[in-house]
Amino acid sequence: LARVAVGVDLGGTNVRMGLVTQSGEIIARRKGKTRVKDGPEKVVGRLIKTASGLIEKARSDGHRVAGLGIGCPGIITADGVVKVSPNLTGWVDLDLAGQLSGGLRTKVRVENDANAYALGESWLGAGRGAESLVVFTLGTGVGGGIILAGKLWRGVDGMAGEVGHITVNPNGRQCGCGNRGCLEAYSSATAVVERTVEALRGGRFTTLSSVIRQSSAEMSALKVMEAALSGDMLAKTVYSEAGKYLGIAVADLVNLLNIERIVIGGGMAGAWGLMEEAVNYEVYRRAFKVPAERCEIVTAQLGDDAGILGSAGLALGKLE
Amino acid sequence: LARVAVGVDLGGTNVRMGLVTQSGEIIARRKGKTRVKDGPEKVVGRLIKTASGLIEKARSDGHRVAGLGIGCPGIITADGVVKVSPNLTGWVDLDLAGQLSGGLRTKVRVENDANAYALGESWLGAGRGAESLVVFTLGTGVGGGIILAGKLWRGVDGMAGEVGHITVNPNGRQCGCGNRGCLEAYSSATAVVERTVEALRGGRFTTLSSVIRQSSAEMSALKVMEAALSGDMLAKTVYSEAGKYLGIAVADLVNLLNIERIVIGGGMAGAWGLMEEAVNYEVYRRAFKVPAERCEIVTAQLGDDAGILGSAGLALGKLE
Repeated sequence: LARVAVGVDLGGTNVRMGLVTQSGEIIARRKGKTRVKDGPEKVVGRLIKTASGLIEKARSDGHRVAGLGIGCPGIITADGVVKVSPNLTGWVDLDLAGQLSGGLRTKVRVENDANAYALGESWLGAGRGAESLVVFTLGTGVGGGIILAGKLWRGVDGMAGEVGHITVNPNGRQCGCGNRGCLEAYSSATAVVERTVEALRGGRFTTLSSVIRQSSAEMSALKVMEAALSGDMLAKTVYSEAGKYLGIAVADLVNLLNIERIVIGGGMAGAWGLMEEAVNYEVYRRAFKVPAERCEIVTAQLGDDAGILGSAGLALGKLE
Repeated sequence: LARVAVGVDLGGTNVRMGLVTQSGEIIARRKGKTRVKDGPEKVVGRLIKTASGLIEKARSDGHRVAGLGIGCPGIITADGVVKVSPNLTGWVDLDLAGQLSGGLRTKVRVENDANAYALGESWLGAGRGAESLVVFTLGTGVGGGIILAGKLWRGVDGMAGEVGHITVNPNGRQCGCGNRGCLEAYSSATAVVERTVEALRGGRFTTLSSVIRQSSAEMSALKVMEAALSGDMLAKTVYSEAGKYLGIAVADLVNLLNIERIVIGGGMAGAWGLMEEAVNYEVYRRAFKVPAERCEIVTAQLGDDAGILGSAGLALGKLE
C-alpha cells in the first residue's frame, strides 16, 4: 500500500497529469487540452473528472492517495486562490484549491507553474543535492523559481522568482510586461524568433531567409537553433546574445543570493550549447569569484515532467 | 540583572562599540581608529582590550553579558573566520571569532558588516514589523543585506546580498569590482563625486566649478547634495541618475523576491529626497504591479548605530 499523489501541470494550451509515488515515479498519466475559452467552470470540471479517474485507479491498484498538487500560471495566494493569470483568461480570484478539493474530496495544493517546475527539478532533477538554487524556465516567456535552504521562496504575495523580468539592458528591447530590457525580451523563444525575423526583414540574407518568404509565422526558435547548429551566422549571433543577457541575469543572482546551483530549463534549454559560452563569459566578468565558483550552472533533466513531479511532491509533503 | 551584549562595528577607518540591552538600548559606547596598517594582531588586541573594558563595566553595573557580536567588512565564514576583506588589508583566513572569544572568554558572533547593518535596521529601525526586506547601504560603496522570513539570507559562502553589484547597465561605467555597469558605479558616494568631477572637467560650468579649481579631491557627495538642494542642475542630474539606477536594482529585487520593504541606508540616504522620484519611476515602470505595490521603500533610521545594534542582536540571540 504505497502513498501516491496526483500532480497536475496546467498550461494555457495543455493539461498534463500524473500519478506520482513517494519516490517520484510517475505510474500513470493523463493528457488533454485546457481549452481556456470554455471558461474556468468547465476547465475545472474537466480537471476534476480526469483527476477522479486517476484517483480511482490508484485506489483500485491498492494505493493510498495523499492528495493533489497543481501547477498553474499566474498569481496564486497561499490558500490556493488564482488571483489572476496571464495565460488563463477570465481566471480572476478563482478558488481553485477550494473547487478541486470540494470536487475530489482530497487535499489540494496549488502552486505557480514555474515554482512547481523548480520544485520538481530540485526534488528529482538537476537540482538534486543542492539546498539553494534558482531554476530558469526559458520558453515562450522566461519564468523561474527560487529555492533557499531547501524551501521555495514564494514572496509575500507568491510573486517571487520572476527572473524573466530582471532588467538586463535598461534602454533595451520592449518586453511584453511593458518594461524595456527584461531578460525575457532577449532570452525567450519568442525573443529569439523576433530578433531573427527583424534581422531578416532588415535585409540580412541567410539560410533562414527562405523560412519567412511566405510568412514570419513560419519562424520558430527550433528552426533558428537548427540553423545555428548548421553554422548560420545570424542564428548563432541571436543565440549568443540570448546567452549574453541570460549570463547578466545569472550573475545578478549569483551576487545576490550566493546559491549552489542554477538550473536552466524550459524548451530553450535544448539550445544551451549555443548559449553556454556567452553565459559563462558574463558570469565570469560580472560575478564575484567566490560565489561564481561556488555556483554550478546546469541544464534541467525532467523535461515536461518537472511540473507534474513538483506539484505531486507538494501534495506528498516531500517539498515545501 | 539585565542581559546585555557588546556590539562592534569594525570599519576600515573607525571602530565603534556599544553595550546593548535586550530591548536594543545602547547603554555605553566606545570609539576608536582601526589603524589597519598596524596589522591584524594589534587591531584584534585593541578590540579585545576595549571590549574587555566594556564587559567589566557591564558586570560591575550588575548586568549579565551574553557575548559579543561584530560586523566586519569582507567574506566571513559561518564559524567567524575572515576569509578576505577589501577594507582590512592583510586579513586573510583570520579566525576573528576564535581570537576574540579566546581573549574575552565570551561567546562571539562575526557577521559581514552590511549584513549586521541590515539586521540592526530590521530589529530596531526602518525594518521593524517586516518579515522580509532588503537593506541597501549607499556609501563609499554599495552593500546590502537580504532578510527573508525574519532570517538573514547569507548564501552558501556568506556572500549573499551584494546588491551593489547588480548589473544595471551592461555596457555602463567601470566599477571597482572589475565589472561594467554595477549599481555601485552609479549610486555610491564615490560615483556621485566621479560623475560630477567628470562633467566639470568636460566643460560644464556650475556652482560646483569653484570646488575643483584647486583639486578634485575637494569634491564630496555632500557638496554635490548641497548644490543640488540649491538648484544646481548638474548636481540634480547626478543624483537623479543615481536614483534611476538605484530604481532599476530595486525593481529587480521586487520582481525576484516579492519582499515587504526596501530600506535605503548608508551616508547617501541623506540625499534620498534627490533620488526618490527617479527610484519610484523606475520601479513603477519595471516591476510587476502586485509586488511593487506591496513593497514600501523607506530610509534607514539608526544611522551609524545600525551595525552595533545588529551585531549585538546576534550575540543576544534576538536575530538570526
